[in-house]
Amino acid sequence: MMQGIPRNTWAIFRPFSSQALHPSKINSRIKNMEYAVRGALVLRAQDHAKTLKTDPGKLPFKDILLCNIGNPQSVGQVPLTFPRQVLAMCTAPSLLDNEVIRSELPADVVVRAERILANSGGGMGAYSESKGLEIIRESVKEYIEKRDGYSTNIDDLFLTNGASEGVKTLLNMLVRDDKDGIMIPIPQYPLYSAAITALGGAQVSYYLDESEDWGLSTKMLDQAAAAAKADGIELRALCVINPGNPTGQVMTESNIKEVIAWAAKENVLIMADEVYQTNVYDPAMEFTSFKKALRSMPDDVANTVELVSFHSTSKGVLGECGMRGGYLELCNIHPETSEEVYKSLSVNLCSNLPGQVMVDLMVSQPKPGDPSYDSYKKEFDDIFNSLQRRALLLVEGLNKMEGVTCNASSGAMYAFPQIQVPAKFEAEAASRGMPADTAYCFELLDATGICVVPGSGFGQEEGTFHLRTTFLPQEDKIGEVVERMDKFHTEFMKKWS
Amino acid sequence: MMQGIPRNTWAIFRPFSSQALHPSKINSRIKNMEYAVRGALVLRAQDHAKTLKTDPGKLPFKDILLCNIGNPQSVGQVPLTFPRQVLAMCTAPSLLDNEVIRSELPADVVVRAERILANSGGGMGAYSESKGLEIIRESVKEYIEKRDGYSTNIDDLFLTNGASEGVKTLLNMLVRDDKDGIMIPIPQYPLYSAAITALGGAQVSYYLDESEDWGLSTKMLDQAAAAAKADGIELRALCVINPGNPTGQVMTESNIKEVIAWAAKENVLIMADEVYQTNVYDPAMEFTSFKKALRSMPDDVANTVELVSFHSTSKGVLGECGMRGGYLELCNIHPETSEEVYKSLSVNLCSNLPGQVMVDLMVSQPKPGDPSYDSYKKEFDDIFNSLQRRALLLVEGLNKMEGVTCNASSGAMYAFPQIQVPAKFEAEAASRGMPADTAYCFELLDATGICVVPGSGFGQEEGTFHLRTTFLPQEDKIGEVVERMDKFHTEFMKKWS
Repeated sequence: MMQGIPRNTWAIFRPFSSQALHPSKINSRIKNMEYAVRGALVLRAQDHAKTLKTDPGKLPFKDILLCNIGNPQSVGQVPLTFPRQVLAMCTAPSLLDNEVIRSELPADVVVRAERILANSGGGMGAYSESKGLEIIRESVKEYIEKRDGYSTNIDDLFLTNGASEGVKTLLNMLVRDDKDGIMIPIPQYPLYSAAITALGGAQVSYYLDESEDWGLSTKMLDQAAAAAKADGIELRALCVINPGNPTGQVMTESNIKEVIAWAAKENVLIMADEVYQTNVYDPAMEFTSFKKALRSMPDDVANTVELVSFHSTSKGVLGECGMRGGYLELCNIHPETSEEVYKSLSVNLCSNLPGQVMVDLMVSQPKPGDPSYDSYKKEFDDIFNSLQRRALLLVEGLNKMEGVTCNASSGAMYAFPQIQVPAKFEAEAASRGMPADTAYCFELLDATGICVVPGSGFGQEEGTFHLRTTFLPQEDKIGEVVERMDKFHTEFMKKWS
Repeated sequence: MMQGIPRNTWAIFRPFSSQALHPSKINSRIKNMEYAVRGALVLRAQDHAKTLKTDPGKLPFKDILLCNIGNPQSVGQVPLTFPRQVLAMCTAPSLLDNEVIRSELPADVVVRAERILANSGGGMGAYSESKGLEIIRESVKEYIEKRDGYSTNIDDLFLTNGASEGVKTLLNMLVRDDKDGIMIPIPQYPLYSAAITALGGAQVSYYLDESEDWGLSTKMLDQAAAAAKADGIELRALCVINPGNPTGQVMTESNIKEVIAWAAKENVLIMADEVYQTNVYDPAMEFTSFKKALRSMPDDVANTVELVSFHSTSKGVLGECGMRGGYLELCNIHPETSEEVYKSLSVNLCSNLPGQVMVDLMVSQPKPGDPSYDSYKKEFDDIFNSLQRRALLLVEGLNKMEGVTCNASSGAMYAFPQIQVPAKFEAEAASRGMPADTAYCFELLDATGICVVPGSGFGQEEGTFHLRTTFLPQEDKIGEVVERMDKFHTEFMKKWS
């Protein structure tokens, strides 16, 4: 027999303030942490979605268009068939014993699944070694070596739950107290600021140059470093996101080398977030890894600058966010430090096995002649080409709007336009107790159903206002995103100018 | 063209000490963290495994028997068929469009997979909401309500990557500085000590009573609390592991109520690690959840004592460690605090989707009449009954050895015998710079190939020595574990007495 107990009846019996985990007693570093990508706007969007189901006439739009997060499969991207078939067979190897089912599958699916299983030491249900399955780290090694032309050691590779776990693990090792400085770009992906806040370290912000396509100049690094040092901060690491999130720029090899030389001079570790390495849309640009640039520099740099690179199954063309697969690679890291990375990750036992397998499938794709090759290549190219078209369409549309300027989305999955907000609206936003970009995003959501993230969630130069929007809605929807935004923005400007 | 660069050539160019992440510059809380379950012994076992492949004659045993970790599928436990089939179809829904494959699958597999997919908002490849898919939290709610007879709210449920992520998230919210005390049992599962060390909190150890089947008495809680308070420690939380890890005891309902009353008196939050709730082997005992015990107490306790309960897909009969599935439930937690839990987990975006689905399959099993019911029940019962037999066999074998005493493994997956080590060996171990139990475990591994974990990795009363061994090797192997141990121990005692 079920007995219901109302929630939050605490205060009837004791004062709230005596609670062990009363909000006033929470670790302030956790309380101060911000993560805008899943904040109040997203909760409002969820409320609207519920209203659309129960009382559709109540809202001025017919559906929610989620552009707040790089989550392609939540907005219609169909997963690549080959990786999913392999993973399904790894998940239920008993299906491979069924001759009928087996004969329905492409031969390379069966071969790949059986190869992973045979080398897994217990399949998808067993903890793997803490670094991840060796056979998968071998695949990652081959991928990196082919990409960069320099050798990789599987002992320097660690599979992680997405890139986020890797980033947090490294930051946790670096930050001893609030005098340890971690340099992050502004704008940045808020995982960095959140993790630094949670660990009690010092965030050292360096600005990307919006007027130079969000370029990273060592001048800005110098400025940020000088200011931090004047505050008694010891610089420990420099985080770089390439291609950029939320900013979509792609760094050149020579720019990367400048940054590495700067890190060498300042003795800081480089954390290279390269999760968008496959998402380069501008045919004139190409992705260069920090590892490759580093290894091609003179030996006294190539063999000394400490680098940790991160990759993920969530982005690229694969877009397997839900699998939480990723890896990190250590370069020029002290062997005892590497042992500490091992120990840190071993407390979590291992990253999830389906995610590990997805890493394997990301780095080792069907080859010409394989039974799945043609269909895989078609699916892959279709997604890539569509992302490329959508990036152009969105940025073009944004730049047509009054007072909106947007750099090209050469890479990644986002546009980060600047919006010249009328002074009257800025005052209105202030009276609502929020920055103008946040207020703008709420207005946009309430009027159009489009959910984006205000620039303040990523950081921006004082006095400027931005928003981040993905271009992930499918092609039949992305035009509508631009149209609804444009219509809203025109009315917004009319109302507040 | 590949260019190799030797690792660790740093010192040729610069002094190691100038490295940004030189071991001397690592956050000391991370350096001080210990996690014995995957420490030096396991690495030695991996070396032995390699030697067995390359030079089998070199070692006095023919295989490694891993008893160091609760990882059933790594030592031969076959995964339950129904959950894996459902998960495989969720992973590759395109297979369900193939009529041939579809017709080979039990109807309830197809129905369940399609139901999950239809309610997932993008399948296994999309980030879910940060708390986890609502449809799965609904299943968890039903499971808890049926288990306990009290209502549950899905807003109080959060799906996590295993139980570990949940435990760490809560501890991170509790610990502000080294004056915040977290009470943990000794012996304990080292996730707790590792996380408290990493966060810089105060570990407050309370001892379980080995002479009373590892019982938890409030007298021991009083002692630990008094000592901590004398050191200026503020008690924040009390961690309880039931059934016990590494100790295998099962708490009675009345004992749980005593503990809750104690927590009410001391105003501490209870963290109830209940990942072994299905692993109760003694027919005279049954699992009682802290939630149920709490809700059945007088209202001023039932509605005020703060409780967070944890569960996992890794243990039980399911044993799906590699899936990293788990959940936590908040009880009597302040709504603003609950928002902070949400924010903390949202920085990780969400737990992995295959793990979420495995949670669903754990809490919602085939029912009588379902096509998969009979085979599922047989597989389930076979595993459970075998675990029960193995627990008895191992503990009985251990108790026959000279100077070894072991409480019953009424629950969980481990035995934690005490070993009376001869004084001569204790001196020898000291000369090797390690505790006697660690030295014993190395000797055991080198002589027999059996890998266990020394008691010092879990904590034990000063001057006593234990080891933790699982009883997870399959039935044809567990007898051999006992035999090899017995033979080794007899010779060990002869040599050192």
